[in-house]
Amino acid sequence: MEREEEGQRLDPWGSGVIKDYGRLQSEFGIEGIDRLLPRFKKLSPHLSRGIDFGQRDLGRILDAVDSNKPFAVMSGIKPEGTFHLGNKMTADDMVFFQSLSRKTTVFYAIADVEAYCDNGISFQESSKMAVQNVADILALGLDPERTVAYMQSEEMRVMRLMTIFSRGITNNMLRAIYGERPIGLYISALIQAGDILMPQLQEFGGPKPVLVPVGADQDPHIRLTRDLAARYHDEFGFIPPSSIYHRLEMALTGGFKMSKRDPSSGFTLDEDPRSAAKKVLAAFTGGRATVEEQRRLGAEADKCPVYDLYRFHFAIDDEHVQRVYDECTGGIRLCGECKQEAAALVKKYLEAHQKKRVSLLGDARELLTKNKRYLASIGE
Amino acid sequence: MEREEEGQRLDPWGSGVIKDYGRLQSEFGIEGIDRLLPRFKKLSPHLSRGIDFGQRDLGRILDAVDSNKPFAVMSGIKPEGTFHLGNKMTADDMVFFQSLSRKTTVFYAIADVEAYCDNGISFQESSKMAVQNVADILALGLDPERTVAYMQSEEMRVMRLMTIFSRGITNNMLRAIYGERPIGLYISALIQAGDILMPQLQEFGGPKPVLVPVGADQDPHIRLTRDLAARYHDEFGFIPPSSIYHRLEMALTGGFKMSKRDPSSGFTLDEDPRSAAKKVLAAFTGGRATVEEQRRLGAEADKCPVYDLYRFHFAIDDEHVQRVYDECTGGIRLCGECKQEAAALVKKYLEAHQKKRVSLLGDARELLTKNKRYLASIGE
Repeated sequence: MEREEEGQRLDPWGSGVIKDYGRLQSEFGIEGIDRLLPRFKKLSPHLSRGIDFGQRDLGRILDAVDSNKPFAVMSGIKPEGTFHLGNKMTADDMVFFQSLSRKTTVFYAIADVEAYCDNGISFQESSKMAVQNVADILALGLDPERTVAYMQSEEMRVMRLMTIFSRGITNNMLRAIYGERPIGLYISALIQAGDILMPQLQEFGGPKPVLVPVGADQDPHIRLTRDLAARYHDEFGFIPPSSIYHRLEMALTGGFKMSKRDPSSGFTLDEDPRSAAKKVLAAFTGGRATVEEQRRLGAEADKCPVYDLYRFHFAIDDEHVQRVYDECTGGIRLCGECKQEAAALVKKYLEAHQKKRVSLLGDARELLTKNKRYLASIGE
Repeated sequence: MEREEEGQRLDPWGSGVIKDYGRLQSEFGIEGIDRLLPRFKKLSPHLSRGIDFGQRDLGRILDAVDSNKPFAVMSGIKPEGTFHLGNKMTADDMVFFQSLSRKTTVFYAIADVEAYCDNGISFQESSKMAVQNVADILALGLDPERTVAYMQSEEMRVMRLMTIFSRGITNNMLRAIYGERPIGLYISALIQAGDILMPQLQEFGGPKPVLVPVGADQDPHIRLTRDLAARYHDEFGFIPPSSIYHRLEMALTGGFKMSKRDPSSGFTLDEDPRSAAKKVLAAFTGGRATVEEQRRLGAEADKCPVYDLYRFHFAIDDEHVQRVYDECTGGIRLCGECKQEAAALVKKYLEAHQKKRVSLLGDARELLTKNKRYLASIGE
């Protein structure tokens, strides 16, 4: 029997191609999400539209919601000056899970060290961009009162955890999860583990469930962190973090994942709404070769990045998504008109979001300053 | 031709056996020190007694002394609660080079992260021990006005540098220098590189010569750091750090290196002077099998840890060292009387040092507090 050497490992640093979400469950132990849906008092679009497809220990988060116990949601961003649709995906999850309970704290890491190392972005520059990025998540609905946003380069606790973890892990463990990689990427993974486990330190109230919403390609980081949580349980009392996985959005140019490296593959929330609309109109679709054929066979929504735009972000509601899907696959909706509608939705959304974001810049600045003071003040 | 696989690599983490200091020069490019001696206005006991045997770019430090330009001396300690003779060796070098110029700043890293990771010593505990350790170096003659002592766990600049370096180095480079090691040790090496290069950051006045006094077994760290300095020259303007190497003292029990793991192999500056004297009286020596033989052949000072005590630390002056050597190798001095004399010197030294150290605890605390405020205040 031939073994599939390729694709046996998820690559959090690659422009990953994930074709088979079912395989993630059988091979990596990511569990399905359907049986947990009845436990939610309300569903996010990610949940009702099958965008969040898997989880690890999500039940632990729902238990905390039910029993009104504290839990944390942890995520982060590399402050590159743009807030792209992938960032929005994660932010949408953060906002939703924060809204489920008054006891949720969101931890948001601004990965300025990575931005510096990978992109040569200075710490001052990152500091400015952090304000923009935080304004974005506030505009998406995050409650600043229950959010701790921090610059990675100022958070010695994360670095301490990274150093501690680096002593408890073998090179073989790292290789088993990530393959042979440069040490810089291993360290970056250990720093992320520090970010994810920091909310459980005593100065933040001690061990608690933590949910990390991620794209499916980021699962290796979750596995590493869960390994480390178990390994350091006796010392820190860590509870293994929970995770929820969303599908990756198709690139507008037809690839399997939007990529910052290819600007026409997607757009950012900061982008000129007209430019974004243009990209939508120029997008690859799941359409057929001819109108006649499309009328006869229907188009392929499941292979269409424009359909993804409706489904992941810009449809008015779930019914709207369903209607687009049915009309598309039923051969009623043609790609030209569909793109026109999507482009208009995108333009409208971006205009509203950008207006809101600008009005929240002061709040974002205030949040970061307040958090900085808070983080410096709490004991070690 | 058979290759010597063993010993081709220096092991900074082992209880290294270095038999042939000449080989360090031919194999690793450490240069001799003799030709530079005429450039010193005064010689330390380490220099006049051949204890410092090698260097890299020491001329650059002497140039700075001659032209009255700023330079730094960098060293550190793992705060394990004891200040052993190896720490004293490094401190003696720090004190001496600080005394050569009014423009020297000493940087002293308290490696509390390592103490935590390797020995489970809490950060609070390290903080307390740091006061003791700094009092030790003040008692040895360091000028607190020109010293920056810092806790590694509080110095984000070091961690940032470590992360930056981790992106610029390949696993092969690390393997070539250290062999295949757990990632924790690689990270610890990169943190040390951060410590050594930090004095050259803009907030400390920018690029300058930095001298690192080390035991010969620590040379791999120096090579790594010099590599990194070259690699990041364009970005930071780093000047490759200079180094000076001292011989390793023989263990009182006869091994090639004193080890913290074997308490009878040496003593600490905090130790009960009577207990230390007892260890000296019980020490292995370079003596012959019988008195008759020793009278006839002389003893072997070069293989004697008691002779090392005179030479490295406790002789009154250079002449005293010479006299002990001549009497020993000439068969005039027998081991019993020699140990008696050494034990008395050790006891007297420790009594005086400990008295002085206690009187300097307040100054040490003040220095650490002042430095902490200073380091937090300077721009990033």
